[in-house]
Amino acid sequence: MEYQLFYWPTIQGRGEFVRLALEEAGVAYVDVARQKNGTAAMMAALEPDGNPAFAPPFLKAGEVTIGQSANILLFLGARHGLAPRAEAGRLWAHQLQLTIADLVNEAHDTHHPLGPTLYYEDQKNEAKRRAAEFIDHRIPKFLDYFERVLHQPARRGGFLVGTRLSYVDLSMFQVIEGLRYAFPKAMRRIEAGYPGLVALHDRVVLRPNIAAYLASKRRIAFNEEGIFRRYPELDKQD
Amino acid sequence: MEYQLFYWPTIQGRGEFVRLALEEAGVAYVDVARQKNGTAAMMAALEPDGNPAFAPPFLKAGEVTIGQSANILLFLGARHGLAPRAEAGRLWAHQLQLTIADLVNEAHDTHHPLGPTLYYEDQKNEAKRRAAEFIDHRIPKFLDYFERVLHQPARRGGFLVGTRLSYVDLSMFQVIEGLRYAFPKAMRRIEAGYPGLVALHDRVVLRPNIAAYLASKRRIAFNEEGIFRRYPELDKQD
Repeated sequence: MEYQLFYWPTIQGRGEFVRLALEEAGVAYVDVARQKNGTAAMMAALEPDGNPAFAPPFLKAGEVTIGQSANILLFLGARHGLAPRAEAGRLWAHQLQLTIADLVNEAHDTHHPLGPTLYYEDQKNEAKRRAAEFIDHRIPKFLDYFERVLHQPARRGGFLVGTRLSYVDLSMFQVIEGLRYAFPKAMRRIEAGYPGLVALHDRVVLRPNIAAYLASKRRIAFNEEGIFRRYPELDKQD
Repeated sequence: MEYQLFYWPTIQGRGEFVRLALEEAGVAYVDVARQKNGTAAMMAALEPDGNPAFAPPFLKAGEVTIGQSANILLFLGARHGLAPRAEAGRLWAHQLQLTIADLVNEAHDTHHPLGPTLYYEDQKNEAKRRAAEFIDHRIPKFLDYFERVLHQPARRGGFLVGTRLSYVDLSMFQVIEGLRYAFPKAMRRIEAGYPGLVALHDRVVLRPNIAAYLASKRRIAFNEEGIFRRYPELDKQD
């Protein structure tokens, strides 16, 4: 069975967390909206007879359609060895993923503090204030937490969950990539305090399937339409 | 086995979605932080040897500790008949719960658009702009979606998932209560457009366990420390 992923065709966005899991698992999937007339197909699929999604990404797996990126990863993790088999481990991985989703939401809010309905240009000053708080307080709070998780006794091999790679590690790689893209000056300074997470990032890059994906045209470049945007006025030297 | 819920003792907040599920299920639980020296016990439990939570709420169920409210509901739903048994139904319920979590995040951001690290008083003007966007665009977008879900062919009995009450219905009740508390003027006008969701809210109130809970001292009143806050300057007549 071939999966169908539905997500915006020109950004990494929240769909990228799903793409990374599909790529690492080496399963067949179609990135529907990136095909000819794909966005129209995606918008039509948002209004099915069955279980509609509030927004992309959503994944069709045979008869089942699953929305919300963390939920899609919950599903894929169980099916493709990207999460522990036992319930407690699966819930723990999902808990970490939901915490990553919180961080991703806050990264998005740095350029849209007044909400998703207004343009960035209409909330630039507010974005500067929110980005400064994010850099000074929120990034360290989240990365402190994940670095601490990495050093829990049960974590061996430097992965966030158990002793093997999981979708949570792929998502952490993506978060570090995104933060580096959006806030290059701030991250150069901040990430020095998180050697475990940086090493995890580097280990993910070396996975053969991920390396092939990152070198392919399937990997969309970061840009100023996605979640992680490089607006120099929001970055911070110290 | 008695559950231990760890959440801030003076607010409904995100813990309330879990409390409602525990109450409806009629299972034994201790709301740890509401006991003597409870907040200290909660803060200590945030730093365990095992799987630390980023923030409350988290639930101890025997040897397992589960964080993130939607994740806790995923766990409780499967155990106490508050979600479908089959995987596809469980994922669908969780997808809806994660969409409710998105709405709840945006409700929180109406009073903290510049982030959780600054006081409301320091972001009042920004809060006014964000709240206006939330009322005019985001509440209708979310409620349109959930009202549409309610009218899907497979939904009978007026529940959001399948033909029986699930934790998603309890959460939707809480969202409507919260929006009414935070934005009484706006909601009076808005909710007239969502008769299905209002009927669902009213049906939840009549559940014997929920009715008993709402009348008890266990139900904390809404206040200006939680997610849904009544700041008259953020409400909107039209």
